Amino acid sequence: MTIKVVAKHYVKPEKVEDYIGLSKKLVKETLKEEGCIEYGLYQDSKDPLVLTMIEEWEDNNCLERHFDSAHFKEIVPLTTECFEKEVEINIYNKIV
Amino acid sequence: MTIKVVAKHYVKPEKVEDYIGLSKKLVKETLKEEGCIEYGLYQDSKDPLVLTMIEEWEDNNCLERHFDSAHFKEIVPLTTECFEKEVEINIYNKIV
Repeated sequence: MTIKVVAKHYVKPEKVEDYIGLSKKLVKETLKEEGCIEYGLYQDSKDPLVLTMIEEWEDNNCLERHFDSAHFKEIVPLTTECFEKEVEINIYNKIV
Repeated sequence: MTIKVVAKHYVKPEKVEDYIGLSKKLVKETLKEEGCIEYGLYQDSKDPLVLTMIEEWEDNNCLERHFDSAHFKEIVPLTTECFEKEVEINIYNKIV
């Protein structure tokens, strides 16, 4: 069964463009990874400061490899200064 | 551009089975709706009381029709007593 990841970021107003720019690079490289079914950045329709990565992976091993990838380890640390508070990450298994 | 919906529910321990049962009916009927690309119930891998509906719709009109559908109006009110606190709903537009 595939797994879904929802990573919700509360972005500082002055950092929205920086974060989207960094995410573009991350999305482009991640979509090439084995086992990546879906990986996209989404903006809340009511609050443009809520930016959420919605992902789907073949299995947990693929997700672990993603965390260990060169582009993840290069780009993600650069994004942390963009956030107002800690990222909320949920890793989900499908029920229905 | 399609839209994503993430509806995160914090479910009472004694109501998890009831909520999953009601969701099965809702998912089955909703997947038949025009403009529904994805509609599934997911359980957090660390906290089984966090149950989240992850959805994708062709556009906002399809989502509005879903809120107005017979199965939505029948089933969703029955789920409210299953929750520990208010549902967190985000409606998202794709950025990258």
